Amino acid sequence: MSATADTSTPPDTAEPLLLRRDGAGVARLTLNRPKAYNALSVALMEAVLAELQAIDRDPAIKVLVIEGAGKGFCAGHDLRELKDDPSTTFRERTFDLCSRMMQAVVGLRQPTIAKVHGIATAAGCQLVASCDLAVAAADARFGTPGVNIGLFCSTPMVALSRAVPRKQAMEMLLTGDMIPADRALAHGLVNRVVPGDAAALEEETATLAAKVADKSSKVLKTGKEAFYRQIEMPLAEAYDYTAGVMVENMGYRDADEGIGAFLEKRKPVWTGE
Amino acid sequence: MSATADTSTPPDTAEPLLLRRDGAGVARLTLNRPKAYNALSVALMEAVLAELQAIDRDPAIKVLVIEGAGKGFCAGHDLRELKDDPSTTFRERTFDLCSRMMQAVVGLRQPTIAKVHGIATAAGCQLVASCDLAVAAADARFGTPGVNIGLFCSTPMVALSRAVPRKQAMEMLLTGDMIPADRALAHGLVNRVVPGDAAALEEETATLAAKVADKSSKVLKTGKEAFYRQIEMPLAEAYDYTAGVMVENMGYRDADEGIGAFLEKRKPVWTGE
Amino acid sequence: MSATADTSTPPDTAEPLLLRRDGAGVARLTLNRPKAYNALSVALMEAVLAELQAIDRDPAIKVLVIEGAGKGFCAGHDLRELKDDPSTTFRERTFDLCSRMMQAVVGLRQPTIAKVHGIATAAGCQLVASCDLAVAAADARFGTPGVNIGLFCSTPMVALSRAVPRKQAMEMLLTGDMIPADRALAHGLVNRVVPGDAAALEEETATLAAKVADKSSKVLKTGKEAFYRQIEMPLAEAYDYTAGVMVENMGYRDADEGIGAFLEKRKPVWTGE
Repeated sequence: MSATADTSTPPDTAEPLLLRRDGAGVARLTLNRPKAYNALSVALMEAVLAELQAIDRDPAIKVLVIEGAGKGFCAGHDLRELKDDPSTTFRERTFDLCSRMMQAVVGLRQPTIAKVHGIATAAGCQLVASCDLAVAAADARFGTPGVNIGLFCSTPMVALSRAVPRKQAMEMLLTGDMIPADRALAHGLVNRVVPGDAAALEEETATLAAKVADKSSKVLKTGKEAFYRQIEMPLAEAYDYTAGVMVENMGYRDADEGIGAFLEKRKPVWTGE
Repeated sequence: MSATADTSTPPDTAEPLLLRRDGAGVARLTLNRPKAYNALSVALMEAVLAELQAIDRDPAIKVLVIEGAGKGFCAGHDLRELKDDPSTTFRERTFDLCSRMMQAVVGLRQPTIAKVHGIATAAGCQLVASCDLAVAAADARFGTPGVNIGLFCSTPMVALSRAVPRKQAMEMLLTGDMIPADRALAHGLVNRVVPGDAAALEEETATLAAKVADKSSKVLKTGKEAFYRQIEMPLAEAYDYTAGVMVENMGYRDADEGIGAFLEKRKPVWTGE
Repeated sequence: MSATADTSTPPDTAEPLLLRRDGAGVARLTLNRPKAYNALSVALMEAVLAELQAIDRDPAIKVLVIEGAGKGFCAGHDLRELKDDPSTTFRERTFDLCSRMMQAVVGLRQPTIAKVHGIATAAGCQLVASCDLAVAAADARFGTPGVNIGLFCSTPMVALSRAVPRKQAMEMLLTGDMIPADRALAHGLVNRVVPGDAAALEEETATLAAKVADKSSKVLKTGKEAFYRQIEMPLAEAYDYTAGVMVENMGYRDADEGIGAFLEKRKPVWTGE
């Protein structure tokens, strides 16, 4: 959906739309339609959603990194596909699927990190905003340019407006302009901006992922789930709810181990229980 | 309401309280009580509200710019008027009218840009916070100094606390201190700070207004309305709602035109349908 | 709960756990378990809660400053105490008490300022986030490191996630990393960062406290209470509510005095009525 995206969207080759590789507790999903700037076709979104469900059930995975192959992270929806099938049924399927995919990222048991290079536009920007954390290359750019093509980024703004201040979200939505990585950092859309080449971006992302993967998986699940639940509650209700979460968390074997290790000044050994 | 405001509030002359001029799809409202720092008398607020209603119905207008005549943007309520009529009826009328005016800015079909020079205090600061976007001169200053005169800025804080982080809003509200434009930018109260003279501020504002005015009016209306509705919803509800907005938006003639123009690499021609 | 905290937690001496001294309308509460980094034992939290209730009823107090004795502000819960009594009853009591204490800070009639030096971790960071304002020494550091010991900072995140953008809160919660004072300032967790020594921090805090204490106590109460109520409401409801607050505030003797003094260009004399 970006103005800089290749509009020709060549047919996908035999190469899979989505790549997954795991290592040291970290799953990596690579959006793999590089010639189409990883545009989110229905087939790609279905593949992502299926992998999210598999990862959620996989006890070996403690953190998920999402990245894009080729020149950029993700240019949003596949406009050619939406143009080719103008039926309401297909449109409903597309936006329902996309919204379910984004909520599956938020609802995923494991913390999720977006690794962003090049452009992240429209639903691509939404995907960054939906991840718990984001690391960006210094030349990454973010935008919600739907307004430029007569299709306001109404679903992307759900995630965007919960990540950055209102006027900043509105500026991106109403102008369609791209913002550079440092402004994304200043507004809270990303956590880190990494100068240098692809290797530097990879190293910073891998370091952050490894740091999170070093925690108890059960505790990460508890905390992430509680975060998104409590943030939608009034203050008193949020405290009632999270005080209960704390008491339950205190009963975990990993809390017992962690507190014991801390008091004994040794490194904890998690069992995920 | 600002400590720097001229307190003498001379009677308004034959000059209209509010000026409107339109051009190239952009309506301009100028608060025109320069000797009173554009204090929001009941008569001025009624004039603004009437123009907002007229602009909302005007298909030629795609963007609204709000500015102040004279030395500053707006110094808030007209204290002398409030002092002169101490009846509860007049007070209720004043604050009800003000709240309706601010909500009419938020609810306006067209995106709204505050162009701020000099001071924007109390309800003047609220007006900036209520606009979708804001452009400030480098020497603009913002404040909610009601606490200094025994009248806490309780209605201004509704808009302010939704635009900037809580502790920043609280600092402005509890101290009554003015903040400079660069801090307003850092906290998200404005989108741009423009160095230089009045002409530079005008040029930056006009450029931003023209950029927004270049979009489809129907799409802008859809997006702005959806923004403020979804932001008050829990995440799942917001996605259900906006996915429906996207499907409906896809059916607009302007979406068809915009997507077609994008894929054909030409400039779209909007019909506002 | 911080990795840098002294884990030995020596028994408290005859010295009181909490110190209070008042002056010029400002109450000062000093967490006084310096050898335990002011860890929030049940006894300390009960002492804080009791003082908050007393301060709330004390007409002489207009502002509260909370600080920590010794090397840091507060390192969160007392882990040794929680380890020593593993009963669910004690855990429930601890987290219920802590949540009531934090909400008592938010609900306190008087504005509250956290004065932070050294570390503010876990419930210590939550206490900073819960205060209306915060002033930090340049070398202060903030963190929610519970995840490192298997006990996610689920109650601290209630306050943290309402003070800073989501991705910044998530980074602190998921990594357990400490952030320096300047990043806390950039994200909105504190209002001021003070370079220099303890005397400089004290002077800046005292100046801010005195500025707030110079306002009408009744008006401060009205504004603070309205702030936290309206921020949980949808926009229209928030305006209905605060417009009523404004009308009521206009009827205060202190509003009459304040507006009169402003128009007459003299200093107001508050009666707190």
